[in-house]
Amino acid sequence: MKNIAIVGVGLIGGSLALQCRKKGIASHIIGVDNNATHSTEAVALKLVDEIQSLEDAVQHADAIVLAVPMNALVKLLPTVLDMVNNQIVIDMGSTKSILTEAVKNHPKRGRFVASHPMWGTEYSGPSAAVDGAFENKAVILCDTENSDAYAVDYAKELYTKLNMHIIEMNAIDHDLHAAYVSHISHITSFALANTVLEKEREDKAIFEMASAGFESTVRLAKSNPDMWAPIFMQNKDNVLDVLNEHISQLRKFKSCLEKENWDYLKELMSQANQIRRIIQ
Amino acid sequence: MKNIAIVGVGLIGGSLALQCRKKGIASHIIGVDNNATHSTEAVALKLVDEIQSLEDAVQHADAIVLAVPMNALVKLLPTVLDMVNNQIVIDMGSTKSILTEAVKNHPKRGRFVASHPMWGTEYSGPSAAVDGAFENKAVILCDTENSDAYAVDYAKELYTKLNMHIIEMNAIDHDLHAAYVSHISHITSFALANTVLEKEREDKAIFEMASAGFESTVRLAKSNPDMWAPIFMQNKDNVLDVLNEHISQLRKFKSCLEKENWDYLKELMSQANQIRRIIQ
Repeated sequence: MKNIAIVGVGLIGGSLALQCRKKGIASHIIGVDNNATHSTEAVALKLVDEIQSLEDAVQHADAIVLAVPMNALVKLLPTVLDMVNNQIVIDMGSTKSILTEAVKNHPKRGRFVASHPMWGTEYSGPSAAVDGAFENKAVILCDTENSDAYAVDYAKELYTKLNMHIIEMNAIDHDLHAAYVSHISHITSFALANTVLEKEREDKAIFEMASAGFESTVRLAKSNPDMWAPIFMQNKDNVLDVLNEHISQLRKFKSCLEKENWDYLKELMSQANQIRRIIQ
Repeated sequence: MKNIAIVGVGLIGGSLALQCRKKGIASHIIGVDNNATHSTEAVALKLVDEIQSLEDAVQHADAIVLAVPMNALVKLLPTVLDMVNNQIVIDMGSTKSILTEAVKNHPKRGRFVASHPMWGTEYSGPSAAVDGAFENKAVILCDTENSDAYAVDYAKELYTKLNMHIIEMNAIDHDLHAAYVSHISHITSFALANTVLEKEREDKAIFEMASAGFESTVRLAKSNPDMWAPIFMQNKDNVLDVLNEHISQLRKFKSCLEKENWDYLKELMSQANQIRRIIQ
């Protein structure tokens, strides 16, 4: 039972705090957040035991978990590493290459474990924290050979207690795969929302007809731009690669319809059905 | 309490059958299906009381509900109207213009009510029938001025008993709006599945990372091509119109990333967030 500091007490950090308390992962949970409203909310919602300044929290914690947007994280991580002695630092960010590059020569690099729990919702802030988050999802640990063994052990123990499935890979591969299975879904959902909102100007009646299928494909469009814009930017090359592929796949559907190529249209859809072998 | 015949005992027809029994909408439910396996399943699953030939079912029913794929429906509807005397005929198909056009001069046109319940899942066949389907969703009734009053009353009573929200509009408007809120979501989901499956050839590891967000955006890609290809084809012009808009919206994201236009990227995402005013 240790003291844990969680920097950024929003959706991800707040959900982690709930699980840390529930599973007895930490005896004392310290929150850190630049946003005064979020700080107050996090205490009121009993996500954290108290709010401290970053300096105090790092001083008092055995482990510091960073759960802030990627643009802030890239600046925050070296600052935190400057402050630590033996404390362990873990991030929960959605991209890894630029972050690990930013601290590769830091004298305290070994204290840091780069991780990405593959869990989230389209909501944000402390009130979005979810009881039972992370359970049975995957978590990626990156470049663990650059972390001290005891730091990696701590991270694995933490995620095992959260009932997560641990996968190790290097930061470059992580960013490639994250673009395919997470980042592109967000782009398509944002763009679909804009498509329908653009058309809605012609007639509002369409919204009375929105069905569960539409809601499912468009729900990620509610996600926080302050969180997602830095992710797309930091993973620009991979996101562009998969976005180009996606536009090309959409053009195949377009061409089938234009040419009334019935057989190829059904073939494209049968190919897509193969996703069943991965998503039950 | 009347005899109802349901032609096509798959996802939609089977789910209707379950609700008709549960809510006492029909005293006897007759199923009709070209597919012998589906016919056997529908009886075994107690969706319908018995299977009859189309001719016999039309003869014995007070109302005939057609729940077959759109390409079959366009041929089936005139055939059924040829057979009816005072029976009511209702279809549950996803496009309306070509269908209503196909029977506009039929002497029995008044017996027919064109409807589209805005409910479905990505699964198909009798085993996909869902207990409690349709509840609290919208149903569109089209061109009701071309149907006899008693037929429209019957359809409204049926859908009211299913707890559906009835909206009336003409067939042309229906197809436009259906393209925006339903058909485009299916195209983007099919294309997203193909995008990821194309990339997966390079590395299977990505599937270990699939998260709830990915599953949500890609689940419609499991939908039945035999049902959806005819829908896209029959609503070709509207689907192409919204698909072109969608590709254009995706290109805006692409351009932002290529030019590292951070402000416009966040603006696009904030615009997309406005979908919250429709989808909670």
